[in-house]
Amino acid sequence: MKSTQSIKSLSEQVLEAVVKVVGSGPVSLHEPTFDGNEWIYLKECLDSTYVSSAGKFVDKFEADLANFTGAKYAVSVVNGTAALHIALKLAGVKDNDEVLVPALTFVATANAVTYCNAIPHFVDSEESTLGMGASKLREYLQATTEQNDGVCINTSTGRVIRAMVPMHTFGHPVDIEGLLSVSKDFNISMVEDAAESLGSYYFGRHTGTFGLLGTLSFNGNKIITTGGGGAILTNDKDVARHAKHLTTTAKVSHKWEFIHDEIGYNYRMPNINAALGCAQLESIQSKLRAKRNLYNSYEKAFTGVSGIKVLKEPDNCKSNYWLQTLFLNNEFANKRDQIIESTNKSGYMTRPAWNLLSNLEPFITSPKMDLPVAEMLIKSLINIPSSPSLAPEIS
Amino acid sequence: MKSTQSIKSLSEQVLEAVVKVVGSGPVSLHEPTFDGNEWIYLKECLDSTYVSSAGKFVDKFEADLANFTGAKYAVSVVNGTAALHIALKLAGVKDNDEVLVPALTFVATANAVTYCNAIPHFVDSEESTLGMGASKLREYLQATTEQNDGVCINTSTGRVIRAMVPMHTFGHPVDIEGLLSVSKDFNISMVEDAAESLGSYYFGRHTGTFGLLGTLSFNGNKIITTGGGGAILTNDKDVARHAKHLTTTAKVSHKWEFIHDEIGYNYRMPNINAALGCAQLESIQSKLRAKRNLYNSYEKAFTGVSGIKVLKEPDNCKSNYWLQTLFLNNEFANKRDQIIESTNKSGYMTRPAWNLLSNLEPFITSPKMDLPVAEMLIKSLINIPSSPSLAPEIS
Repeated sequence: MKSTQSIKSLSEQVLEAVVKVVGSGPVSLHEPTFDGNEWIYLKECLDSTYVSSAGKFVDKFEADLANFTGAKYAVSVVNGTAALHIALKLAGVKDNDEVLVPALTFVATANAVTYCNAIPHFVDSEESTLGMGASKLREYLQATTEQNDGVCINTSTGRVIRAMVPMHTFGHPVDIEGLLSVSKDFNISMVEDAAESLGSYYFGRHTGTFGLLGTLSFNGNKIITTGGGGAILTNDKDVARHAKHLTTTAKVSHKWEFIHDEIGYNYRMPNINAALGCAQLESIQSKLRAKRNLYNSYEKAFTGVSGIKVLKEPDNCKSNYWLQTLFLNNEFANKRDQIIESTNKSGYMTRPAWNLLSNLEPFITSPKMDLPVAEMLIKSLINIPSSPSLAPEIS
Repeated sequence: MKSTQSIKSLSEQVLEAVVKVVGSGPVSLHEPTFDGNEWIYLKECLDSTYVSSAGKFVDKFEADLANFTGAKYAVSVVNGTAALHIALKLAGVKDNDEVLVPALTFVATANAVTYCNAIPHFVDSEESTLGMGASKLREYLQATTEQNDGVCINTSTGRVIRAMVPMHTFGHPVDIEGLLSVSKDFNISMVEDAAESLGSYYFGRHTGTFGLLGTLSFNGNKIITTGGGGAILTNDKDVARHAKHLTTTAKVSHKWEFIHDEIGYNYRMPNINAALGCAQLESIQSKLRAKRNLYNSYEKAFTGVSGIKVLKEPDNCKSNYWLQTLFLNNEFANKRDQIIESTNKSGYMTRPAWNLLSNLEPFITSPKMDLPVAEMLIKSLINIPSSPSLAPEIS
């Protein structure tokens, strides 16, 4: 006779640990909190009538972002995808170039490459950071590329590999110094995708400030939000000036004439969204503390759940813990969908990592390296509720 | 001895007439008014925490826009440029196609063509509407194109002319039925650029609803604003569905999987911007009345200024009078810059029409027809202060 007192299933254990930390449901994956000056700034913005392309909040938000990240310049834009598009252009990406992109990331990165008429070339992850692995990438490039006149040529396609776009997955810093060194050795520009890692540091330096250009996102699910928004970070004055020019229709300054001196984009962040951003950024430290507290609570709650760990920031890094992430040991990877089903059914939103971009229809023929780690990771990762408002007070 | 009692210069007369209508300065060219439910909806949006890609205001704004314009479907996007880009894609514009674009319009239209890797082909205006002239375009196409397998070929470049993008300049409806007939006869799709003409009607039907697709803009200087925003209008259900899909990263609906089945864009309008739009659209009728009042007042004030008229809506059309526009008779066209200088110096913002796109560096080699009317118009047009808040009460 089968015992009804059977050992709890892994799904039940996960649900129990999550509930222990976040309390009664329903609980979403990530929702913003507006507990600072959001209201005051929005009102000020509306009262000024400057809600759109002009207004003081855009300038203030850019200065505040530069100040917070330590980048010399920040250019605010309409979203993270737009930031990537323009950053790639400014990194010199041209028609028919290839751009190294993690297979394990959000689709925007590969899309932005195609907006430049270039081709994404997918790179494997390393387990410790979830992001691009430097030594594996170096070996791969050594075996598959050659240098020609200071550019890196993919010997099998004949195309130039112009840029790489490492990403700090779920807020955890990638091995950015290792990748920078590959970038330099192989003459491949670096655009650093820090969409998920505002408030994350690699050896004390803010992510997004290592490459020629970095990009941020302030989508509704990010650690701070402007409704929709993004930014380009750079330490190069000319690059910053050009980023602002390209994202504001490439209009040449004139009292009234409409002169546009190159193909530009309407990518500017409206002032009303920047107003929200200014208020959100003021309270980022409390959000970062809350997310760290939340990690600590999850870590404790999952201690007793064998076969699952909560992802911890890499050594020498400080993660913003944007999305809390469970890692299922190999033997339990086949339980991923069960766990996701049962938690969602119970009102606790969880989700897997993305599908590998290399498996999506639009990119199925794109070049790629072998992707064993990324393949393993998508079976093993589950994002769990991560809103800063869920963080219990540390006693 | 020269008399100091000389007759007033044209610049002085213009300034006097403007001041008579709008009162003491400084007065901007166009600023929005927020005198409805803007506050309430913004607060509701913030309190809900749905400020970004999800939320009820996006759906409501789209339904309200469809209802107001009479289009079956409206898809809100991040700005008018994004609307044009996606509308052109959905009209079938492909690499190396040509797209007929007015030489006299804002640069966004030609830029959007290039985002499709297509080439703008510039078309002359007619004086009565400022927009593309149908009969001149017909003659031009008869002389320079041939039909091949149901597509229109530019015989001198060998490229397909895939689409045309007529625009309703400053809110005044173009001869859209005449152009539709050219569009049909020559197998050229029509995307109707109604960025400036929300609230403008051609024979009782709202602009933007004649072509396969129409586009709107809600930039800060438009008749209603969402900070930054735009929309795609269509009566075709599949086109509407595809527009929504392409503008929201082409993500296939799934409980948690990230499947994207084509190259998509992050062009969605954030909920917080849509909240503003819902409130703005509620008060569009009073804005339209104010703008018509303002036209009537200017018309009266300029009656005595010889050589200048205030642009009136075309016959059988109802214009939203978005930007009030002076037209200088040919003999005074050389006074344009003087008038603009003196009004701006006195604190009354005025500006010329755009430079012809065909003269801008990025488009200097693009194909074009002779542009005598557009050339004449840019020398003759001056936009004068047009905010609805300037409208005097009709006594």
